Amino acid sequence: MRYKEAAAKQLKDMPDEANPFEKEGIHIAVNARGCVVDIPLSPGENIYGFGLQMGSFVQNNKKKRPLVNDHPLKDLGYTHAPQPFYISNKGYAVLVNTARYTTFYIGTNRRNTDYAATDDQKVKLSTDELYGSAIPSASKPRVQVDIPGAKGVSVVVFAGPDMASAMRRYNLFAGGGSLPALWGLGMKYRLKTDAKQEDAYRICRYLREKHIPCDVIGLEPKWQTRAYSCSYVWNNAHFPTPHELIGRTWAMGFKLNLWEHAFIHPTSPLYQPLKTRAGSHLVWNGLVPDFADSTVRRVFADYHDTCFVRQGVAAFKMDECDNSNITRGDLNWSFPELTTFPSGIDGEQMHQLFGTFYQKTLYGVFRKHGMRTCLDVRSSGALTAPYPVSVYSDTYDLEDYVRMVCNAGLTGLLWSPEVRESADQEDFFRRVQVGILSAQTLFNGWYLRNPAWLQFDKQLNNEDRFLPSATRNEDIIRRLLNFRMSLIPYLYTQFARYRNEGIPPFKPLVLNYPKDKTAATIDSQFLIGDDLLACPVVGKGDRREVYLPEGYWYDFNTNERLEGGRLHSVTFALDDIPLFVREGTILPLAEPTDCITPETTFDLHCRVYGRQPRSTTLFEDDGVSYRFEEGLYNQVKLWWNGRGNMKRTGKFKGMKYRIKDWTIIQPQPKSSL
Amino acid sequence: MRYKEAAAKQLKDMPDEANPFEKEGIHIAVNARGCVVDIPLSPGENIYGFGLQMGSFVQNNKKKRPLVNDHPLKDLGYTHAPQPFYISNKGYAVLVNTARYTTFYIGTNRRNTDYAATDDQKVKLSTDELYGSAIPSASKPRVQVDIPGAKGVSVVVFAGPDMASAMRRYNLFAGGGSLPALWGLGMKYRLKTDAKQEDAYRICRYLREKHIPCDVIGLEPKWQTRAYSCSYVWNNAHFPTPHELIGRTWAMGFKLNLWEHAFIHPTSPLYQPLKTRAGSHLVWNGLVPDFADSTVRRVFADYHDTCFVRQGVAAFKMDECDNSNITRGDLNWSFPELTTFPSGIDGEQMHQLFGTFYQKTLYGVFRKHGMRTCLDVRSSGALTAPYPVSVYSDTYDLEDYVRMVCNAGLTGLLWSPEVRESADQEDFFRRVQVGILSAQTLFNGWYLRNPAWLQFDKQLNNEDRFLPSATRNEDIIRRLLNFRMSLIPYLYTQFARYRNEGIPPFKPLVLNYPKDKTAATIDSQFLIGDDLLACPVVGKGDRREVYLPEGYWYDFNTNERLEGGRLHSVTFALDDIPLFVREGTILPLAEPTDCITPETTFDLHCRVYGRQPRSTTLFEDDGVSYRFEEGLYNQVKLWWNGRGNMKRTGKFKGMKYRIKDWTIIQPQPKSSL
Repeated sequence: MRYKEAAAKQLKDMPDEANPFEKEGIHIAVNARGCVVDIPLSPGENIYGFGLQMGSFVQNNKKKRPLVNDHPLKDLGYTHAPQPFYISNKGYAVLVNTARYTTFYIGTNRRNTDYAATDDQKVKLSTDELYGSAIPSASKPRVQVDIPGAKGVSVVVFAGPDMASAMRRYNLFAGGGSLPALWGLGMKYRLKTDAKQEDAYRICRYLREKHIPCDVIGLEPKWQTRAYSCSYVWNNAHFPTPHELIGRTWAMGFKLNLWEHAFIHPTSPLYQPLKTRAGSHLVWNGLVPDFADSTVRRVFADYHDTCFVRQGVAAFKMDECDNSNITRGDLNWSFPELTTFPSGIDGEQMHQLFGTFYQKTLYGVFRKHGMRTCLDVRSSGALTAPYPVSVYSDTYDLEDYVRMVCNAGLTGLLWSPEVRESADQEDFFRRVQVGILSAQTLFNGWYLRNPAWLQFDKQLNNEDRFLPSATRNEDIIRRLLNFRMSLIPYLYTQFARYRNEGIPPFKPLVLNYPKDKTAATIDSQFLIGDDLLACPVVGKGDRREVYLPEGYWYDFNTNERLEGGRLHSVTFALDDIPLFVREGTILPLAEPTDCITPETTFDLHCRVYGRQPRSTTLFEDDGVSYRFEEGLYNQVKLWWNGRGNMKRTGKFKGMKYRIKDWTIIQPQPKSSL
Repeated sequence: MRYKEAAAKQLKDMPDEANPFEKEGIHIAVNARGCVVDIPLSPGENIYGFGLQMGSFVQNNKKKRPLVNDHPLKDLGYTHAPQPFYISNKGYAVLVNTARYTTFYIGTNRRNTDYAATDDQKVKLSTDELYGSAIPSASKPRVQVDIPGAKGVSVVVFAGPDMASAMRRYNLFAGGGSLPALWGLGMKYRLKTDAKQEDAYRICRYLREKHIPCDVIGLEPKWQTRAYSCSYVWNNAHFPTPHELIGRTWAMGFKLNLWEHAFIHPTSPLYQPLKTRAGSHLVWNGLVPDFADSTVRRVFADYHDTCFVRQGVAAFKMDECDNSNITRGDLNWSFPELTTFPSGIDGEQMHQLFGTFYQKTLYGVFRKHGMRTCLDVRSSGALTAPYPVSVYSDTYDLEDYVRMVCNAGLTGLLWSPEVRESADQEDFFRRVQVGILSAQTLFNGWYLRNPAWLQFDKQLNNEDRFLPSATRNEDIIRRLLNFRMSLIPYLYTQFARYRNEGIPPFKPLVLNYPKDKTAATIDSQFLIGDDLLACPVVGKGDRREVYLPEGYWYDFNTNERLEGGRLHSVTFALDDIPLFVREGTILPLAEPTDCITPETTFDLHCRVYGRQPRSTTLFEDDGVSYRFEEGLYNQVKLWWNGRGNMKRTGKFKGMKYRIKDWTIIQPQPKSSL
């Protein structure tokens, strides 16, 4: 495919770098039990990665099992989207390319030849002390990888020279990052699971009437005649005229996204064609398609193409493709590892690959038609950067959510910190603030008849009894989502860099500031591109500590100019944008619109931060097709030399961006607290 | 060994029973990934077991991984003392005899040939509903066992005809239950980890002066020159004269128990002899002895024999032999699964066996000398009933503790719900009530300078600042521990039945009442022998619901007579004994003593519950040796026919029991609430 060739060329064009392990080498030992990989590690070096880790950021001195599982045991490494991949702040990355379950010992596996002469003799007088105590380091730390059942393994090393380059090489090796449809950067709203056609209209009308931006409406399980497991057939009791639904919501500027999972109910038209090409065990009484078989992927894709994509469905939410330890009556929540598949792979391997196969299958339908999209998935694996798919989760800890943005950025993943229920107003808007600064802004109302901001109490919400503050909440939501819409030109450009150069659009500070020792451990803030630093408040109150790296930074809300290289105590109100802008940035912010249609033009207000701003370049294309791969795109360069300038180059004939005005930001002194 | 022969004879003498799986058969499939075992299961049948499970009792419809791990994920099956063993209330038990990691799917693994025609179409409107929903059962439930890495496996089936018989067969197959030293049934008190010799004397004097019963004093890590890892050498800075310590405490009626773990510090005398017979990886900078090698066990045992057992040390606490995911600096808390051992077994297998090997090694020292003992261990495996060893844990949930008594009773384990810290007085005494009704009554003061009952606040305790209620607390502790001491003749007899007949001394109701549908799921109460039913209060307040099985039962405190076969709401104060006595029981309660010495005689007050009491028989021997195996024991029969009678038969020349009086319990009507 063209995008793979482009990425391969980019990768080839990167300068050659020496293998960081040339001297000591990586050792792979195969024994009766499986395979053990030994990889050198330097003292003081930090290791990150392993996919969408939830409970930790720096992974040194940990035992990590990056396994697909919906029951994340935090630091043990289980997650919806694990990867046997890590990246070092010394400037290289490692992929242990296996679908077997792995355990990584990151600098913890001291061998009996590694005895350290001294050790800690402090008496421990609490369990915290006991479990927390350290002893001196061995001379030769290493990463050891345990892969039971493997007969061998290939280890791929991505050279630097720096961490950002290693990250780019990994993403380019995967085929380059994803460029979602432009509308995918707007807001997605998922309806109540038992919503009917009139509910969909009701919510769509509400959003437009109130000018609360929204681009995508998602339907949850009950749109199907059977769900858990799935029929993939419209439930006409709830949606009597799907074509009308698609047409009318489309006319209002909404794309339709359908929930499903990949377990096939016997009443589904997919059941007969796939029943001999499925796993040995059922999930919710449904077949587990053998996605390792290309025929299965084709049959599954063709059905979705004919019945949905050709009918105007713009995207899917691929649920429950992660593993689970939950059981449900006499069935497992997912298939057991002992499952066998006709293609020859087993349940363990299939679990590590299932979410990836599923993305590949459904993304392929859109790709075939030259349509861009923006999908949701519950599980993802290594090398999935090219898929325009955001991972979501049922876990709901806001501090973890922010950390997961950081970790996703180091593993070629996109992550949606979905907004769902909330304890209260404060909790809710803090979640929204994270949502609007993430790869996907997602509100999931799957058990709420009305948007959560009208009533946080589930029962009252479902009885249409709204909060006294409902109107004020709408105002805050509108303000926050309008900001999201304003940011889309900037965001879209970051995705284009992801697509073309493998540079992650959302990333932790360490990737851009690998030599900054403080930045090395920060997982409560993240960069959007290179110029914006999101610093969400995740606890109670308005105040938090932020660390600003080198240079000067502007509080987006107050224009206070703060010195980098140190911590600052800052405040963000519930309707603020918890964001800093790097000095020297030209930030183009669009006039917000309710949604993005093919006709949408972004009217840009350019903000100039600092006296000697760097030029910046926006990516411009049709936003919905792959014609940019044939060169049909523009680079829109913005620069400032006493006045604002703009220059458009490229072959795309349309025009998405129009400069309205330029504002030189007047730096404000830091307010005293 | 003699005890094994005796158990084998007992097992042989049990009547032949048909294999419960004769018709359908057990299927074992070996494939490239490992081994899968398929075992039939009947609809409605309940499965129990898997070792010291913490979070659940009935294991149907669960996925269970009975793996050694100190981080128990509750229902996933990880525990200090897991077993690939289960028992059914249909009257049979199954051991999947492997040291590889197993996953059991207990009736959950529906195959794609098992499609059920109907399924649940209720719309789920909460995550609870979604994850909790059930769908109709398949026609053929089964247990499936996944054993990656196994080249084959032997499955041992224990026939009934009833659940109690299957349990007995399992315990007899292991070699019969354990009979601890008689003193092991008293109270064990573990000192603060940095205690010095004078602290040991101080606590011993305190306990004797206050007449708070105690039989064993335990020293924690700092008795050694190195701990974490261990030197196994007295730390003379803390204990300048160990012989004097042993002698003086012995003279006061205390046995000495030494903490250790099996990871050998380089300064240990055991290091050189074992350094080439150890695992490939270090734990806390110490060697992991290859306990699968009999030479290693012998060297380790001989050292303990010479240095400790011959010097008068009466027991050991074998800590940290469970696996862990915790890391500590650049070391794992335990050895990784990829560890290799010279004997040829790997880290995975060693983890499943390590606690068992460790028990075997140290128990062997005492056995060799013909000395009985009572040990503590942090990890245990299948078929360990013959070891007089109680498992303990750092987890500290009282409700789980009671459930663990039930689960231990179904897997040939003894379990110590240790009393350590407490939120408050109520929490503390509820814990003590569980402790005195368990296999071992253990107070662990490893971070407290003074007994917890004097001050629950750790800091104040360590500053010798005691609660205003300290004296009253001493009175309650004395009362509760005195009851424990009173119960020893009854308890000891239950252990003798465990030893000789394989009948667990502590067990859930289901084992004695397998046809009682309510009893089938009760894990908040447990039987001690067949006549006493412990019903601890684990929450706030004095009240709880108890279920009494068929017949009539007496509240031990009030003598209220309650009808079985139903629930009752009952109250137990903090100084009550949360216990019911089965009608028809003759309960011999001893005059409490401060401790049990070889000279101790138990003066018995026999309580007669009900008009037609059953006779009962006490086991009598020297309490410290194995001479009972040569027939040097007595049966002391007690019966009532208008007056109390006692008859002693057997070859033991001593006399441990003396009847003081008989009391006919006057049944009281149930008080209104």
